[in-house]
Amino acid sequence: MKVLVTGGAGFLGGRLARALLARGRLAGPDGREEAIERLVLLDVAPAGGLEDPRVDVVAGDIADEALLGRLVDDATTSVFHLAAVVSAQAEADFDLGMRVNLDATRRLLDACRRLRRPPRLVATSSVAVYGGELPETVGDGTALRPQSSYGTEKAIGELLVADYTRRGWVDGRVLRLPTVSVRPGKPNKAASSFASGIIREPLSGEEAICPVPPETRLWLLSPRKAVESLILGHELPSAALGPVRSVNLPGLSVTVAGMVAALERVAGREAAQRIRWERDPLVERIVSSWPGAWDTSRARRLGFSGDADFESVVRAHVEDDLAVR
Amino acid sequence: MKVLVTGGAGFLGGRLARALLARGRLAGPDGREEAIERLVLLDVAPAGGLEDPRVDVVAGDIADEALLGRLVDDATTSVFHLAAVVSAQAEADFDLGMRVNLDATRRLLDACRRLRRPPRLVATSSVAVYGGELPETVGDGTALRPQSSYGTEKAIGELLVADYTRRGWVDGRVLRLPTVSVRPGKPNKAASSFASGIIREPLSGEEAICPVPPETRLWLLSPRKAVESLILGHELPSAALGPVRSVNLPGLSVTVAGMVAALERVAGREAAQRIRWERDPLVERIVSSWPGAWDTSRARRLGFSGDADFESVVRAHVEDDLAVR
Repeated sequence: MKVLVTGGAGFLGGRLARALLARGRLAGPDGREEAIERLVLLDVAPAGGLEDPRVDVVAGDIADEALLGRLVDDATTSVFHLAAVVSAQAEADFDLGMRVNLDATRRLLDACRRLRRPPRLVATSSVAVYGGELPETVGDGTALRPQSSYGTEKAIGELLVADYTRRGWVDGRVLRLPTVSVRPGKPNKAASSFASGIIREPLSGEEAICPVPPETRLWLLSPRKAVESLILGHELPSAALGPVRSVNLPGLSVTVAGMVAALERVAGREAAQRIRWERDPLVERIVSSWPGAWDTSRARRLGFSGDADFESVVRAHVEDDLAVR
Repeated sequence: MKVLVTGGAGFLGGRLARALLARGRLAGPDGREEAIERLVLLDVAPAGGLEDPRVDVVAGDIADEALLGRLVDDATTSVFHLAAVVSAQAEADFDLGMRVNLDATRRLLDACRRLRRPPRLVATSSVAVYGGELPETVGDGTALRPQSSYGTEKAIGELLVADYTRRGWVDGRVLRLPTVSVRPGKPNKAASSFASGIIREPLSGEEAICPVPPETRLWLLSPRKAVESLILGHELPSAALGPVRSVNLPGLSVTVAGMVAALERVAGREAAQRIRWERDPLVERIVSSWPGAWDTSRARRLGFSGDADFESVVRAHVEDDLAVR
């Protein structure tokens, strides 16, 4: 079997790739496990750090129809679609966001549609599909009312995956990820970038800016749980999802103050004092449009789980991302 | 002011055009009424039957970006976007449906986005955006879960109109029309085409096929009320809609049996006997995925209203469409 990962040079794509290579097998279209013979990592920049004969690194434009047509061939049984332009960037550059988050998703689905057998496709979506007047608790049946172009593009992608799945052209599954924290590496242009930065930077002795007040509540998922969920999302039998292909993953509901307290318990007061509190109205507006309370009972019934507490998320970040320095 | 109607050669477009010409004025972008100086009717076929110096008939491809760029200029203050590939046709020809219902809508929005002043844009959507496991009563806050490609494309169009409006590029309003009945003319490829055919054909002494059982409940709107609603949807101040740009219009909830009884009261038993009952599983599947009960309190608060009873709808059809023969 051949597996394609879009956004394969990203941090989540890289972790997923390593997890897939270690695992070595995935459910094929008929549900039986098959060996992963080729793992194609597509991204704008070449994915690095993976020396494995099964890996093909492809640098290219995810919205390039011809490229997608070449990469998605009849050997392709699984696609993990992670490539995206993140929230604040999609808000700042509308055309880029539409091109990557909408056009590329549609072209990828069209490439899958041409295959003899519908591949399994796991796509990531976001809590940014929600907004406006929300019910007290948001669940899989809550109406999508995105308040950003990023959320709009993700919601459209979800509709497309559902329709292509209904038509039998892909076996699609969409996972709405909570904000992934703690991300290693550099800050990105997501409105939620600070949710990693306020932990990551202080742990490395650097200053971090927190653009929202301490009482802001976030809905978080650790990188370990995110990768675990992507693989579980792939392995589920199609019938387990039924006609509703999108699932809100269980997250950890925690305030920024709670995150900083966890950081302090792991790395001491000095670390927590490296956070500078400087409110940013644009980030605040986007983050505050996201829901507060969640009903993720459907995801839990399907076998998904979140993190137990934020302190262990911080400790896992130290173990996974700082130990190797 | 210049007004553009897409689907201007269609039956609803033609009626809307006549109503606009008779009215002579519409609210401009700042809310003050202005005289309609030009009315552009765009459709694949030239719109006929309108001899008025204000009318420009344009036959062309609604998805043609260059054409839209020429038609939507800085004089354009209002757009009525009615052009669509209907439900059964969009299901049978996926690429055509995506091109007209999604790509053309997006290009039209992009043409509006380039204007100096955001025009008012009234777009039609459909109850086909709903489906799957529905709450007992469907309202403006119910999640969109289309079960057809047509419904998917309309739901995507709604998301785009909302986002372009949020960004201040258009002043968009989306009206989810109940099934319009009685449509004059020929049957079309909409799954709901029979909802007009079973009245229209018997009134003209012809046989009609009813593809669903008599107990099937429909949600109907007369052509008169549809045109009235399009104009009201245009005239509403933007703030009246707030961030939720889509409105479920009030319809008349009636069974097919009730429709046939109304036909019999207007035109006698003989007319009703011209209906042949031949179930069509595809039409039945699509129609049965639409909701049964509606909460249209928001639309009523905004001033929209439906028809009082189906018998007067049949009588209005006789008056409007048969008297002129």
